[in-house]
Amino acid sequence: MHIDKRSIIPLYSQIKKNLELKILTGEWVPGFKIPTEKDLAKHFDVSMITVKRGVLELVSKGLLYRQRGRGTFVSKKVDKNIQQLVTLRNLEDEGKYYPHKQLKFEKIIAGEVISKALEIEPNDLVYAIHRLKLEDSNPVGIEYTYLPQELFTDITPAMFQDDLIYNTFTNKYGVTLRKARIYISTILASEYEADILEVSKADQLFVLERFTYSEDKRIVEYSKFIIRQDKANYFIEVTL
Amino acid sequence: MHIDKRSIIPLYSQIKKNLELKILTGEWVPGFKIPTEKDLAKHFDVSMITVKRGVLELVSKGLLYRQRGRGTFVSKKVDKNIQQLVTLRNLEDEGKYYPHKQLKFEKIIAGEVISKALEIEPNDLVYAIHRLKLEDSNPVGIEYTYLPQELFTDITPAMFQDDLIYNTFTNKYGVTLRKARIYISTILASEYEADILEVSKADQLFVLERFTYSEDKRIVEYSKFIIRQDKANYFIEVTL
Repeated sequence: MHIDKRSIIPLYSQIKKNLELKILTGEWVPGFKIPTEKDLAKHFDVSMITVKRGVLELVSKGLLYRQRGRGTFVSKKVDKNIQQLVTLRNLEDEGKYYPHKQLKFEKIIAGEVISKALEIEPNDLVYAIHRLKLEDSNPVGIEYTYLPQELFTDITPAMFQDDLIYNTFTNKYGVTLRKARIYISTILASEYEADILEVSKADQLFVLERFTYSEDKRIVEYSKFIIRQDKANYFIEVTL
Repeated sequence: MHIDKRSIIPLYSQIKKNLELKILTGEWVPGFKIPTEKDLAKHFDVSMITVKRGVLELVSKGLLYRQRGRGTFVSKKVDKNIQQLVTLRNLEDEGKYYPHKQLKFEKIIAGEVISKALEIEPNDLVYAIHRLKLEDSNPVGIEYTYLPQELFTDITPAMFQDDLIYNTFTNKYGVTLRKARIYISTILASEYEADILEVSKADQLFVLERFTYSEDKRIVEYSKFIIRQDKANYFIEVTL
């Protein structure tokens, strides 16, 4: 497919279709670094703005992703089970390494929102643990976790270093977990989120809000996960 | 909170905050019809464009919803279990009425996308059944369902009139269902979707893609549900 400058179809739309075809036909495989916008503009004999618009449409469709300073790549999407993703524990893979970068670790007063989520009093103390989840050194999600201080005394940042929250619960505090309820919604990336997740501002992101219940039906944890949508196809499975 | 015209905070943003406060404090309860944009403009002594922008921000946040010709209302969000939602069957509620408006019912050639989803040949025939799901006469989602003709001979539109797909499977065809895998993603409403779901173009919508497997591990159904996000808080539950 070539670009037809006399067509009524806008040029950026033709560029988009052209690049999309290369991906869908497999000419450009997942992980492939596509030519720079300058090179594409030269190749198609159109302006860089036109190329950029076409490319950005494919980024928002999740077919391409941009890495600052590195270039634009064909997305490598894998299937991920949300149920497993948010309830991960080291059952089979004891000692497996879960890379996280700690963004914040502090004891704070719960306040209106967090106290409501944890069903405690607004003046109660909670641990606020904010972490950036990494995969192959790439940021995939921000995890905001809140734990009632009353249940988890003497928590230290090291306990959450490169491990899963549920492992710490079970292994270090002997809490028996019963069920988790996970609310799914979406937001458009704020400047802060875009910055640390390395996406563009206003990109669509998943929000998973997890409420974890212990055996005695108490809410022992409230976490909010802000997740990139372009990294995986997220699914759930239900037995019928 | 009043509007400060000399503030550096944009007027629409002040309007938004003001209205938001009325909702969050409960002054305006779920289902409440808020004053018209004309009345609000008069009340705040600002332009209707400013009011509209503030209102639309709250619509996109899901706190308000607009019904064409009726006005703008405070959202009534209910909690909905996605697992139950997409695997509904008449187990306890035999004969319950599930209102749907049929948009399309035809036998077509599967083509590339549908044949891949159903794991059949591109030239195989499928039933394409498009329905609008209603709740309290309001549109809540579009359901695009595709069934391999080979498995479901002599399907008639009446079979899907105000009933659930899974009921038809079980009650009329004796198919034993095994599991469903549901992919969750989002899109911005197209003009067509916005029109029939009565939302604004480019509003965020959920996309649930369901693949249903029968006892013999065959894919017996592929459905794509386009769902309004402003009507409910969607969650899943996982036993730990």
